[in-house]
Amino acid sequence: MSNYTAPVRDMLFVMNELAGLDAVGTLPGYEEASADLAEAILEEAGRFAGEVIAPLNVIGDREGSRLIDGKVVPPTGFADAYRQFVDGGWGAVASEIDHGGQGLPQLLAKPVTEMWNSANLSFALCPMLTQGALEALEHHGSDELKAVYLSKLATGEWTGTMNLTEPQAGSDLAAVRTKAVPEGDHYRISGNKIFITWGEHDMTDNIVHLVLARLPDAPEGVKGISLFVVPKYLVNADGSLGLRNDVQCVSLEHKMGIHGSPTAVLAFGEKDGAIGYLVGEPNRGLEYMFTMMNHARLGVGLEGVAISERAYQQARDYARDRVQGKAIGQRAAGAIIKHPDVRRMLMLMKSQTEAMRALAYVTAAYMDQAARHPDPVQRAYYQARVDLLTPVVKGWSTETAQEVTSLGVQVHGGMGFIEETGAAQHMRDARIITIYEGTTGIQANDLLGRKTVREEGKTLQALIEEIRADVARVAELEGEAFRQIAAGLEEALRVLEATASHLIATAANDMPLAFSGAVPYLMQLGIVCGGWQMARAACIAKARLDAGDDVAFHQAKIVSAQFYATHVLPRAQAHAHAALHGGQATLALDESAF
Amino acid sequence: MSNYTAPVRDMLFVMNELAGLDAVGTLPGYEEASADLAEAILEEAGRFAGEVIAPLNVIGDREGSRLIDGKVVPPTGFADAYRQFVDGGWGAVASEIDHGGQGLPQLLAKPVTEMWNSANLSFALCPMLTQGALEALEHHGSDELKAVYLSKLATGEWTGTMNLTEPQAGSDLAAVRTKAVPEGDHYRISGNKIFITWGEHDMTDNIVHLVLARLPDAPEGVKGISLFVVPKYLVNADGSLGLRNDVQCVSLEHKMGIHGSPTAVLAFGEKDGAIGYLVGEPNRGLEYMFTMMNHARLGVGLEGVAISERAYQQARDYARDRVQGKAIGQRAAGAIIKHPDVRRMLMLMKSQTEAMRALAYVTAAYMDQAARHPDPVQRAYYQARVDLLTPVVKGWSTETAQEVTSLGVQVHGGMGFIEETGAAQHMRDARIITIYEGTTGIQANDLLGRKTVREEGKTLQALIEEIRADVARVAELEGEAFRQIAAGLEEALRVLEATASHLIATAANDMPLAFSGAVPYLMQLGIVCGGWQMARAACIAKARLDAGDDVAFHQAKIVSAQFYATHVLPRAQAHAHAALHGGQATLALDESAF
Repeated sequence: MSNYTAPVRDMLFVMNELAGLDAVGTLPGYEEASADLAEAILEEAGRFAGEVIAPLNVIGDREGSRLIDGKVVPPTGFADAYRQFVDGGWGAVASEIDHGGQGLPQLLAKPVTEMWNSANLSFALCPMLTQGALEALEHHGSDELKAVYLSKLATGEWTGTMNLTEPQAGSDLAAVRTKAVPEGDHYRISGNKIFITWGEHDMTDNIVHLVLARLPDAPEGVKGISLFVVPKYLVNADGSLGLRNDVQCVSLEHKMGIHGSPTAVLAFGEKDGAIGYLVGEPNRGLEYMFTMMNHARLGVGLEGVAISERAYQQARDYARDRVQGKAIGQRAAGAIIKHPDVRRMLMLMKSQTEAMRALAYVTAAYMDQAARHPDPVQRAYYQARVDLLTPVVKGWSTETAQEVTSLGVQVHGGMGFIEETGAAQHMRDARIITIYEGTTGIQANDLLGRKTVREEGKTLQALIEEIRADVARVAELEGEAFRQIAAGLEEALRVLEATASHLIATAANDMPLAFSGAVPYLMQLGIVCGGWQMARAACIAKARLDAGDDVAFHQAKIVSAQFYATHVLPRAQAHAHAALHGGQATLALDESAF
Repeated sequence: MSNYTAPVRDMLFVMNELAGLDAVGTLPGYEEASADLAEAILEEAGRFAGEVIAPLNVIGDREGSRLIDGKVVPPTGFADAYRQFVDGGWGAVASEIDHGGQGLPQLLAKPVTEMWNSANLSFALCPMLTQGALEALEHHGSDELKAVYLSKLATGEWTGTMNLTEPQAGSDLAAVRTKAVPEGDHYRISGNKIFITWGEHDMTDNIVHLVLARLPDAPEGVKGISLFVVPKYLVNADGSLGLRNDVQCVSLEHKMGIHGSPTAVLAFGEKDGAIGYLVGEPNRGLEYMFTMMNHARLGVGLEGVAISERAYQQARDYARDRVQGKAIGQRAAGAIIKHPDVRRMLMLMKSQTEAMRALAYVTAAYMDQAARHPDPVQRAYYQARVDLLTPVVKGWSTETAQEVTSLGVQVHGGMGFIEETGAAQHMRDARIITIYEGTTGIQANDLLGRKTVREEGKTLQALIEEIRADVARVAELEGEAFRQIAAGLEEALRVLEATASHLIATAANDMPLAFSGAVPYLMQLGIVCGGWQMARAACIAKARLDAGDDVAFHQAKIVSAQFYATHVLPRAQAHAHAALHGGQATLALDESAF
C-alpha cells in the first residue's frame, strides 16, 4: 500500500515561477490570490488529500462500488470522506462566489484538483463531474434553473453527472436517440445512457443529471440535440426534495480500473418518462456540452499528471527501501535505486510528471487570463492559447501517464504485478484517461483540424516564437546541461514548424492523409511544450542557484530538465517522422488485408 | 470475448522465407522438417489452439486458479484441455526423440508455442515451465534422474517448475537461503520459494520441482548454489508413485493478470524436510539454471509476439465491426477502421507484431544451426548470434507487447476498459512478461555487458554488416516504399554503430554511466533488427509480386515494412540519443532529491 504526500513545494514552484501566479493575482476579482494564500490552501488540501482521501484508494479498488437492489453502495469510507470534503469547503474551490463558491482562479483550483486525483482518482471523479454540470448550468441555464441547482452543485451538497453516451453511439453523438417530449413547463425524457460516472450513489441527497436528448421535431444529427436537467429527486418550490424521478441505475460496468467509481447504465423514463428541464435553447445541447467538455478535458489531462505523481511517489519509495543485489559500480548490496536503470526509470517518471504539471498549470493560468484580463485583445490571445493547448494537455498527459504508471510497475519488479503492492492499480486506473472525455485520436483531430489547419497555424506559430525566445535565453547559460537543453529544443522547434506546415498543406488536398498524422503531431507538440517548460524551470533554477537559494531543489530542477532534453525530447523527432513521412503507409492497406 | 485464429500463412512466410526452414531441414536429424510438414503441423496446432485452448482464456481470467484446503484448483476446463494437449502429443513437440519427444527443430517448435501463448498465456505457461525443467535434467542430470523423470516431462505427463525466487531475494540469487542437507543418496530441502508458476495443481499425477538451494558447507553468494529435483510425489523403484513429499503450496498470489496460472508460494520441508536429488555437481546450480533460463528467455520474448498477435486480432475484428461516426474523408458513417488514426493504431500493432515474430523465428533457426550444424566454426558463429539476440528478443518483444496490448484497448475506446470485452485482459496478462525470467533491465545488462562490451562488439559488428548488405539490396529496388525502408535502415545502422562504440568505450572508464544506457541500447537494437527483418520480407515480397504470386499478401508485406520504417524505426534514434547523451543526467541526482 502506498501513501501520498502532496508535492506542495513543486506545485508552488510551477505556480509562482512558471505560470505567473503574481500576474493572475492582478486580474479583477483574483486580488487575494497571493503566493501566501496559495501555500496555505495547498498545505491544507494536501493534508486532507493525504490523510482522508488517499487511504481510501486501495479500499475503493478492492471493494468497488456495488449495485444492490437498484441502489449503488460506494466503497467503505467514501460517503464519510465526501461529507468531510463538502463540509471543508473543498467542493466549492473553483465555483463562483455568488453561488457559494470560493471563486479561486483556475491556477489555484487546478493544483488542488490534482491532489484529489493523486489521492484517489475514483473519488475525485465525483466532484469533477459535479463541476462540469455546474458550469453547463452557469453558462446556459435559465435563472429559474440556476436558483434551484447552482448553489447545491457549487458546494457539492448535490453531485452532478454528464449523460452523453448511448450503447449504439459511443463517441458519435450524432447517433443520440434519447427522447424529450414537451409537457407543460418540463419535458418527459426516455432513453438509455451508458458510461455515466457516479451516475447513482447515496453519498448526497440528490443527483443532478445533465442529459443530451432529442425533441420530437429535432433535425437529424448533432444539430438536433438538446440539453436537459434531470434531477434524481424532483425539487419542490420551497427547495425541499419531492418525488423520485423516473431514472434508474440498471447496472454498473465491470472495469479494468477506477473500481471505486460507479460507472452506471441509466434508464430514463421506463415508467412515465423522467421529468427534465431544458437548458438554454433547443437543439444547442452539443454546443453547451462542449463548453463544459473543454474544461473537463483539461481536468482529465490533470488526472494524467496526478496519477503519474502518485505512481512516481510509490516507485521512488519502493526503490529506496528495497535492498537487492549489488548494483553496477557498487561494492555492496544496496537499495535498488542504486541501479542505473532504476534511476533511469525514476527519472523518466519524475521529469515527465514535472513537464506535464508545468504545462497544465500554465494552461490554467491562460484560462484565468482569458476569462478576466481587462484587455479584450489579451483575452482573445489567451483564449486561443487555451484552445490550442487543451487537447495537448489532455492527449499528451494521458498518454504519458500510461508510460509512467507502467514504469511504476516495472520498478517494483515481480512485486509490481502483485495487486497487494498497489502499483498495478495506478496503471489500471490510468488506462481510462486516454479514452474518456474524447480519445487521444479525437483530441488530435481537434488540435489539427480546428486549432491548427483552420487558422493556418497562427496560434501555434506565436507559441513557437515564444518558445524560441525562451530557448535563446537558455543558450546563453554556461554548462553542459543548458547546452543540451537548448540544442534539443532548437532542433525540436525546427522540426515542429516543418511538421505543422506539412500537415496544413496536406490537409488542403488530402484530409485523411493529413489526419493520419494527427496523433503523432499532438504527441510531438506535447513533448516540445513539456521541454519548453522544463527549460524555463532550469533557467529560473539557475538564477536561484546563483543566489544560493535552496540549492538541492534547484539543482534537481536543472538535472530533471537535462534528463528530459536527452531522453524524452528526441522522441518528438520520431513522432515528427511519422507525421511527415508515414501517412502513405498508414492508409495504403486494403481493409481486407488487415 | 475474442476468438483466435492462428496466423499460419504469416508464420509459414517467416519460417520459409526469412528464417530458412530449408537450411534447417538439411541439419542432421532434422531432415524431415520440410515446408509441407511445417504447414501440416501448424494447421493442426492452430486448430487445437483456436478450438480448445483459446476459449478457456477468458474463463481462466474470471475464475482464476484457487487454493482450497492446500490444493490448487485450476479454472474450469483447464485440466481437460491439458489432458488433450498431452494425448495429442503437443507436450512433446520439441523434446528429444529418445525421451519420447518428436524432436522437431526450434524453428518448428517455436511457432507452435506461439500459438499456445496467443490462445491462452496462463495455460501455456505450464508446458513452458515443464520444458525448462526437462532441459535442465537433459543437460545436467545423472542417468538415474533422467531414467525416472525425462520421458514423463518430455510428454507432459508430469509437469515441471523452476524454484529460484525467495521473499528476500527477488532477482538477486546470491541471497538464496533454502537449505539442502545430505542424507544418504538424497538431500533434505527446507525453505520458502515464491512466484512459482504452476507450482501446484491437480492436472497431472506428479509435479517435478527444480529447486535452487545451498549445501551446508557451500560458499557465500552465487557460487554456493546447487540445483535439486524435488518431486511432489516420490517415485518408487518401479516407477510407481510413492509418498507425498514435504512440499506444500501455502498461498497463491493475487495478480494483475494471468489469473488462470497459479503463482504459488511453496514451503519446502516444514515437517521433516523435502526429499531432493542433486542435479549435476554441487555449487553449479546457477550455471545449470542459466542454461535453461536463456532458452526460457527466448520463450518469454515469444510470449510478447503471441499476446500482441492476439490483441491485434481482437482490435482488428472490433474495428471492422464497430460502426460509429463518419470518418474524415468519408461520406457516410462506417466501421471505425475507416478512421485514419484507428488504421494507424492497427498498423502499429500489425507491423510490430510481424517484426517481433520474424526476429524470434530467425533466432530459433540460429539455435537449430548452433545445435546441429556439422561445422564447429559455424556452430560457434550461430551460438554467438543466439547469445546476442536472446536478450533482445526477450526485452524488446516484451516491451513492445506493452504498447501493442495497450493500443488494443485504445482501439476499443470505452469498451476496451470494460472487462467483458476481453481487450483489457491481454494488457493485464502482458504486464508480467517484461518482468519474469529477468526484467528488461537485466536483459539489457546482459546484452551490454556479456554480449557487447566483453567481446568489444564483435558479434554485433558482424550482424550490422549482414544487415547493411541486405539494406543495399533493398536500396536497389524502385519505389517510395523501398526508398523509405533503405534510407531509414541506413541511418539507423550508422547510429547503432555509434551507440555501441560509445557504450563500449564508456564502459572501460565508467560502468554505471555506460549501463545507464543499457535499456535504450537494447530497444534500439531490437527496433533495428525488427526493421531489418521487415526489409528482408519486403524484398522477398517484391520478388513474389513480380512473379504475380499471392498479390494481396505480398503487397501487404511491403506496406507493413514501409509503415514500420516510417513510424517505428525513427524511435531507434530517440533511444540512441538517450544512450549517447543521457547518461550524465540519469546519474546526476542525489538519491535524496528524488
